[in-house]
Amino acid sequence: MIRVGILGATGYTALELIKILIRHPQVEIGALTTRQSGRPAVSQIHPSLAGKLDLPLEDLSPDEVVARCDCVFSCLPHAASAEVVKRLVDAGQRVIDFSADYRLNDAEVYTAWYGETHPDPERLGRVPYGLPELFAAQISEAPLVANPGCYPTAAVLALAPLLIARLVRREGIILDSKSGVSGAGRTPKLGTLFPECNESIAAYNVGQHRHTPEIDQLLGQLAGAPVETIFTPHLVPMDRGILTTAYTLPVGDLTEAAAAETLRDFYREHPFVTVVDSLPATKHVSGTNACHLAVRRVRERLLVFSCIDNLLKGASGAAVQNFNWMYGFPETTALI
Amino acid sequence: MIRVGILGATGYTALELIKILIRHPQVEIGALTTRQSGRPAVSQIHPSLAGKLDLPLEDLSPDEVVARCDCVFSCLPHAASAEVVKRLVDAGQRVIDFSADYRLNDAEVYTAWYGETHPDPERLGRVPYGLPELFAAQISEAPLVANPGCYPTAAVLALAPLLIARLVRREGIILDSKSGVSGAGRTPKLGTLFPECNESIAAYNVGQHRHTPEIDQLLGQLAGAPVETIFTPHLVPMDRGILTTAYTLPVGDLTEAAAAETLRDFYREHPFVTVVDSLPATKHVSGTNACHLAVRRVRERLLVFSCIDNLLKGASGAAVQNFNWMYGFPETTALI
Amino acid sequence: MIRVGILGATGYTALELIKILIRHPQVEIGALTTRQSGRPAVSQIHPSLAGKLDLPLEDLSPDEVVARCDCVFSCLPHAASAEVVKRLVDAGQRVIDFSADYRLNDAEVYTAWYGETHPDPERLGRVPYGLPELFAAQISEAPLVANPGCYPTAAVLALAPLLIARLVRREGIILDSKSGVSGAGRTPKLGTLFPECNESIAAYNVGQHRHTPEIDQLLGQLAGAPVETIFTPHLVPMDRGILTTAYTLPVGDLTEAAAAETLRDFYREHPFVTVVDSLPATKHVSGTNACHLAVRRVRERLLVFSCIDNLLKGASGAAVQNFNWMYGFPETTALI
Amino acid sequence: MIRVGILGATGYTALELIKILIRHPQVEIGALTTRQSGRPAVSQIHPSLAGKLDLPLEDLSPDEVVARCDCVFSCLPHAASAEVVKRLVDAGQRVIDFSADYRLNDAEVYTAWYGETHPDPERLGRVPYGLPELFAAQISEAPLVANPGCYPTAAVLALAPLLIARLVRREGIILDSKSGVSGAGRTPKLGTLFPECNESIAAYNVGQHRHTPEIDQLLGQLAGAPVETIFTPHLVPMDRGILTTAYTLPVGDLTEAAAAETLRDFYREHPFVTVVDSLPATKHVSGTNACHLAVRRVRERLLVFSCIDNLLKGASGAAVQNFNWMYGFPETTALI
Repeated sequence: MIRVGILGATGYTALELIKILIRHPQVEIGALTTRQSGRPAVSQIHPSLAGKLDLPLEDLSPDEVVARCDCVFSCLPHAASAEVVKRLVDAGQRVIDFSADYRLNDAEVYTAWYGETHPDPERLGRVPYGLPELFAAQISEAPLVANPGCYPTAAVLALAPLLIARLVRREGIILDSKSGVSGAGRTPKLGTLFPECNESIAAYNVGQHRHTPEIDQLLGQLAGAPVETIFTPHLVPMDRGILTTAYTLPVGDLTEAAAAETLRDFYREHPFVTVVDSLPATKHVSGTNACHLAVRRVRERLLVFSCIDNLLKGASGAAVQNFNWMYGFPETTALI
Repeated sequence: MIRVGILGATGYTALELIKILIRHPQVEIGALTTRQSGRPAVSQIHPSLAGKLDLPLEDLSPDEVVARCDCVFSCLPHAASAEVVKRLVDAGQRVIDFSADYRLNDAEVYTAWYGETHPDPERLGRVPYGLPELFAAQISEAPLVANPGCYPTAAVLALAPLLIARLVRREGIILDSKSGVSGAGRTPKLGTLFPECNESIAAYNVGQHRHTPEIDQLLGQLAGAPVETIFTPHLVPMDRGILTTAYTLPVGDLTEAAAAETLRDFYREHPFVTVVDSLPATKHVSGTNACHLAVRRVRERLLVFSCIDNLLKGASGAAVQNFNWMYGFPETTALI
Repeated sequence: MIRVGILGATGYTALELIKILIRHPQVEIGALTTRQSGRPAVSQIHPSLAGKLDLPLEDLSPDEVVARCDCVFSCLPHAASAEVVKRLVDAGQRVIDFSADYRLNDAEVYTAWYGETHPDPERLGRVPYGLPELFAAQISEAPLVANPGCYPTAAVLALAPLLIARLVRREGIILDSKSGVSGAGRTPKLGTLFPECNESIAAYNVGQHRHTPEIDQLLGQLAGAPVETIFTPHLVPMDRGILTTAYTLPVGDLTEAAAAETLRDFYREHPFVTVVDSLPATKHVSGTNACHLAVRRVRERLLVFSCIDNLLKGASGAAVQNFNWMYGFPETTALI
Repeated sequence: MIRVGILGATGYTALELIKILIRHPQVEIGALTTRQSGRPAVSQIHPSLAGKLDLPLEDLSPDEVVARCDCVFSCLPHAASAEVVKRLVDAGQRVIDFSADYRLNDAEVYTAWYGETHPDPERLGRVPYGLPELFAAQISEAPLVANPGCYPTAAVLALAPLLIARLVRREGIILDSKSGVSGAGRTPKLGTLFPECNESIAAYNVGQHRHTPEIDQLLGQLAGAPVETIFTPHLVPMDRGILTTAYTLPVGDLTEAAAAETLRDFYREHPFVTVVDSLPATKHVSGTNACHLAVRRVRERLLVFSCIDNLLKGASGAAVQNFNWMYGFPETTALI
């Protein structure tokens, strides 16, 4: 049994994580933390856990977490997360970090996009990016894994095989992404109030979304040369799900069928990524750790459609998938 | 031209009010107020007014409002509203008050339910309740009208004709009401965050909702004896609309057809209330000032179904309907 | 390994059933049937199963089903279901029937509400009703189980302990129920088209819903005397979930706390029913086999709020719970 | 008073059209047609018109329509519409055609995309395209106007000023469009059933949507040379609204500010098109005839965001705007 802790357990990703871990036969939840005082029962914070988990949320120090847990999932906000994570890793804990803190390799890029001095810059560049479809070997061995962003997951799974095979150009990539509202978090804000965003679609943070450098870094790594995408996130009136419509420029006369075959070959051994014939819908992957991909050739462009559940394959499902790799459990444990 | 002002113009009812008043041929909007500083353009606060109304929201004193307006709509919160309204009425303004401050006749009941000492208790009991279907004569003459609550509007329009005609008993009335989320206002709160209330229905404030004494007072007035309803509000994942399912005990062997006929007769001259044969849906009245009613006899109960748009017939549409009566304009002006 | 078959595998309950059975360690899916020709892949009918289950839907005869399966879940429509089920049971198959065919004890009541002559009237009254919280002993031994209706499940779980303990009266029960749209099935109809029912709530089938005799029969059995409820179903713009607001007349001065304690005691050993303190929301049980209950005393009435997921505890989750009881597996297998 | 008729009055665009025409001071509705028999009351087909319009839907011949009306709005399907429209126009009626039949200039292109021989090919190329922001002069004089498609309206209003001014290139235009479900019509289909498309987003008809040639023809006309866009429509879980995210390649070093100024200048006299600073949301134009536009420069691309209500500016609002131009009424009559 692995005793796990969850730091910052009040949000949506923590809730999904708890739901999965309850089903995991090798996991015991040892600690749930919050900065709120009063040790609220987890079912007060997450009413859907009533009758399922009887634990309090506690305001614990890193030392207390270390004492109780073997492995820690950090759902803390960026910068705050690395502050704690570095202490946990230094103390020998294995950590899966949901924040962006260890995703970027370059502390200056981090500062440019997140407006903070990185609290643990020496580790940057040595922490594997938690996409087992690409980096399983490094994840297996790692004390610390950077759990990917939701948009980067959808984009990178769509494009990695094509960029690696040099079937699409690294220039001119447009990522038109659509996300459900849970991606904006659980802190009450005007923009995510029901009567504001229901029955409406709009773009947001155009040209300024913090997942941009993460996407570009990953795609650049895979393409072997810098990539600068045009990434446009949109908010869709639904709880969860991301659809990314990726517009790429094919090299040569790449057909739809050849592109689909390349994707199928690449993901043949990866149980969570499926290439489908019909156009994927976020509903088809909602509540699962799956990613559905499809390709279409339209005039001079090759379009790749990529659907994930932003809270699962885009966050908590991926985290448990990483956990399974780290501890040698079957990749799909608790995720089917 | 009547110059009107709107106090507290940042919320949903104010937005709907502005949209209606823009269409009103006899109205000029003279003032929009807010406690926010910086004189924001109305289109910054309400982006749907971009290109339609070019006015700032201003932090104005009551005197400034009096100087600029003939008639004032107050969308201020309870207690705060009466503080200002009494000064405006004393200064000779005509006022339509959206708050609950002048709806209850008894200052003690007000204090019991709203937890505040009433700022203007002498006026209570002399301010007409703004349902023109029942009180048009008083509204026409009044300097001040208490604009009704949304739930009371749906309930009272459903039951008034039957209680007045003594066709249903005043005991045992159950009001199971379902409302869209805009009824909860525009202040960000966890409970009305999209991922919390979307794809979900729940009851709230059971036994404690502040519209209870308002409903009981009105129905009691019409029945000629005290009424104590069981009123249960529910939150429905939709922007707007109220459906009240009213369970009543018929007197004698009242048939469905006779009950429907009573309602039809009562509302024959009232353009906004329609008795329909099929079961009404909130969507059929959404965006309008209409109320749709239907009756069904089920075993020993007579059920009345009542649908309104909570922001229109339940708030801003009713306010303009009252305004039209106060100034002698055709009742439907700007409301069709 | 139990080889199971699913008859009528194209609808929403079949999809949910398949998702659960894929996770069940003791189950192998042996047959999926449809009347459609062409042996479509299950992922063509249910795209969310792409990459998860690679089986065709086949137009099989009962004999072919018997040859391939140990246990059959029938998702066929009423009347059609009993036609096949009687042949399967006669051939020694164990069957869980999703239709209403074996829920009512009286063939005349069946004909009155379903407009059909019952195809297998001799079995009526001897088939256990598949609510293990009430009838686990009978279910364990049964060759055939009548899987409950979604509304009856929510209503009966709410009221059973109180009626059995004679804490509420069997007269005057009002059930105001609200359901998500998946309850209306997957056949395209105007009323469940997105732009018709989205952003709207309405009652439907008032006084005529076929779950009425089922609710009355069950509650009557528990109360030891006839029960005639007023049952009013409403359609809510959400995929799934039922909230039933039950209005009962308490016997004596039953307090809220005492009623809650009675419910808690009754369900102490039942993992899927939880009595909560706050008002339950359908979202809190969505995607699970849980039922959340809460009570409130309002004036002379005791209100019980009951939430389930109509497709899970209201259909496919309950079916697997019954299956687990029938085969001696832990009740929660594949359902956590 | 202009007596108007509406052909094919059962769908969503007809409903919106009726709602607007009821408010129009110069209009009397003389005929509503359907192929359904039985002369159903309009409120049976459109319950939201109960108490507002008391007319039957009738199965009328073109001659009967001519006898009763001065001007006809045709909401018939493509091909069927031109069959009737040509007879009406030949008989001297003025017609606004909602179908695609008179939008394309080339009968062969029509056949290629619509799979039908055009019933009235001689008129093609001489019927003005009903976007008064571009073609008001022709519309004013025309006996017949081709009411635009919803996607073309959003796309053309976004790009026309920039293409005319040669500020963006005609090559490489990508139109990622998102539409509410009402755009798919009122005929029950699996894909637009609530539980299928709610809580989901997906692309559809990629590379094959019939609005493609219409967009290309219009943009090509404005650019003075052929345009071949990549147009990708998506279905969004909301009733109404279109957001088009247009990715263009600017000519030279076009700034965001300069592009916005070009749009503002172009639409200065056009009351329904507003250039906004913040990113537009479909909700801000829902229920109105407005189009909100905004521009953003991201790396080498200029993005234009365009929001309309697909049923109003994308259909029935535009139709009445055209009607107002045709009869010399103020453009905004009945549309504010």
